[in-house]
Amino acid sequence: MKINSNISGISTKTKEKLKGKKVLILGGLGMIGSNLAHKLVENNAEVTIADACIEPFGANIFNLNGINDKVILNKTDIRDSESIKLLVKDKEIIFNLAGQISHNDSIKDPLYDAELNYMGQLSVMENIRIFNPKAKVLFSGSRLQFGRIQQIPVNEKQPSNPETPYALHKSAAERMYQYYYKIHNISTVVFRIANPYGMRGQIRHHKYSIINYFIRKAMEDSTIKIFGDGKQIRDYIYIEDLVNAFIIAATSNNTNGEIYNVGSGVATTFLNMVKTVLNTVGMGKFEHIPWPDSYLNVETGDYVTDISKISTTLEWEPRMTLQQGIERTFQYYKKNIKYYLP
Amino acid sequence: MKINSNISGISTKTKEKLKGKKVLILGGLGMIGSNLAHKLVENNAEVTIADACIEPFGANIFNLNGINDKVILNKTDIRDSESIKLLVKDKEIIFNLAGQISHNDSIKDPLYDAELNYMGQLSVMENIRIFNPKAKVLFSGSRLQFGRIQQIPVNEKQPSNPETPYALHKSAAERMYQYYYKIHNISTVVFRIANPYGMRGQIRHHKYSIINYFIRKAMEDSTIKIFGDGKQIRDYIYIEDLVNAFIIAATSNNTNGEIYNVGSGVATTFLNMVKTVLNTVGMGKFEHIPWPDSYLNVETGDYVTDISKISTTLEWEPRMTLQQGIERTFQYYKKNIKYYLP
Repeated sequence: MKINSNISGISTKTKEKLKGKKVLILGGLGMIGSNLAHKLVENNAEVTIADACIEPFGANIFNLNGINDKVILNKTDIRDSESIKLLVKDKEIIFNLAGQISHNDSIKDPLYDAELNYMGQLSVMENIRIFNPKAKVLFSGSRLQFGRIQQIPVNEKQPSNPETPYALHKSAAERMYQYYYKIHNISTVVFRIANPYGMRGQIRHHKYSIINYFIRKAMEDSTIKIFGDGKQIRDYIYIEDLVNAFIIAATSNNTNGEIYNVGSGVATTFLNMVKTVLNTVGMGKFEHIPWPDSYLNVETGDYVTDISKISTTLEWEPRMTLQQGIERTFQYYKKNIKYYLP
Repeated sequence: MKINSNISGISTKTKEKLKGKKVLILGGLGMIGSNLAHKLVENNAEVTIADACIEPFGANIFNLNGINDKVILNKTDIRDSESIKLLVKDKEIIFNLAGQISHNDSIKDPLYDAELNYMGQLSVMENIRIFNPKAKVLFSGSRLQFGRIQQIPVNEKQPSNPETPYALHKSAAERMYQYYYKIHNISTVVFRIANPYGMRGQIRHHKYSIINYFIRKAMEDSTIKIFGDGKQIRDYIYIEDLVNAFIIAATSNNTNGEIYNVGSGVATTFLNMVKTVLNTVGMGKFEHIPWPDSYLNVETGDYVTDISKISTTLEWEPRMTLQQGIERTFQYYKKNIKYYLP
């Protein structure tokens, strides 16, 4: 527990490395990107953000509240190769978090998902290869890449059997990042992220950041619908823990070409998550409904991250319990909800 | 050896099934597509061919010599969704063989490879899902999807670790076909093909159909360059054997959703292949040169197909020895070489 004494979750040495670092965050107005931006600015990095602001993804300009004048913001789509070329060329660290985020929407329009989640990613990497091959590049993959789970907790060696276009394109992008590492010697890092939640996530719809959406529902004193008995196990990681992992991986030398499963490492039933939300907010209720076919088709089964690789090789561990994370998220929306409602 | 008595390699029952069948061949002017077309026409199928005729791929209008008036030919790119919609909608069997074929070229331009070998494939499948979900669809994947080989002979269960954009996009396309089978119930079949060769292959450059190119070099009495000692093992499958496998898989009910490794099942060293070409043609010579870095980087190691899955579940087996296949290919070019030179 060497880092628990450190209140921010990243060491003084890591903070030193961030000072003056030129960082680009693609998809920087979303939940992960904007929380990263706050932490980077706090530690004196020079942050540039690009975001295409595509609806209904997570971009929200209010996410930069407090650091507006400390970051450079570009409205740019990762598919716009000319703009990306200019953006990547002088950066030291590039977080590529841009993308379509809904598992179910990718089934409705797989071509659109492929455009954003594969072609866009590939175009960014080609620009980096040609114009800035020394950059460190981090990619946000997903636990969904594994498809139906064979065994929990899930370590990096479990086979990847993506079952939806979203998962398939994330998985193809991961392999593409590995290719740029192996053949072109670019310093890539891939995270396969469990279920992230926390402040600055979108709450307009239920397609992702489900905890965030449920906090809104509870705040509205609504009824939360649970598919089936709610006994399916998930791994919810609080956004600050995830951001710390990204920053530590970005500033470490032993992460090049690596893939990490990133989560809290804690098994939580869906039902318990809902109950924690309702208890924390102090309003709302829940009911059980049958699984819709469209969800059942692509249900992966129980998921918990085996975080031993990332926590033993990097100075990182998750610091927030689900209870604490939900409490912080709720406090955030209590104060700022008007900026997040439709 | 139940089928050896059958001179054509496909049974009378299979031939019966082809009669009047509406078949679409995407990439139908290339080596595999045009040989398929000849066999299908011979067996009274109604054949429509689409080909984008992109240079330097394998399309050659002379490949339809003899069946010109028996097929419908469209100059269409698989990325042209509107045309594909019209082409797929009334077909019973669709062979999707269109694509960029060079492993090394995909490294030079991965975006172009992704456009053709992934986005184009995905667009075809979306059109089939929407306008003709009852069609049987066959896809030509590649042995290169496996990447560096763990163990020979290679069966379907060996892990897929694609190492180039070409292999990566073929692999992503395979998963995408599996997705359409599992979630949308479309009758897909995937072949991971070893090294095909034979009549009607392009011989203008050395980027693929290496045996074909070497036959040309030998006919020109040139020197064939062998990388290293030439001891690397390959699996060369003659085009007629491959075409038979495609036809049998297309007309069988137990192939839906299946993936097959398809090859001759015979281990041949590169050196022996070259010697067989030179002996057959009776001209030319060879020399050893060091491996170029660009090839060494993506060399997969020895490869032989384990054909037990396809040969035990379908009435198929390879019928042609390398010697016979090279002889037939040579005889074809001896007669027609002017239609194949640059």
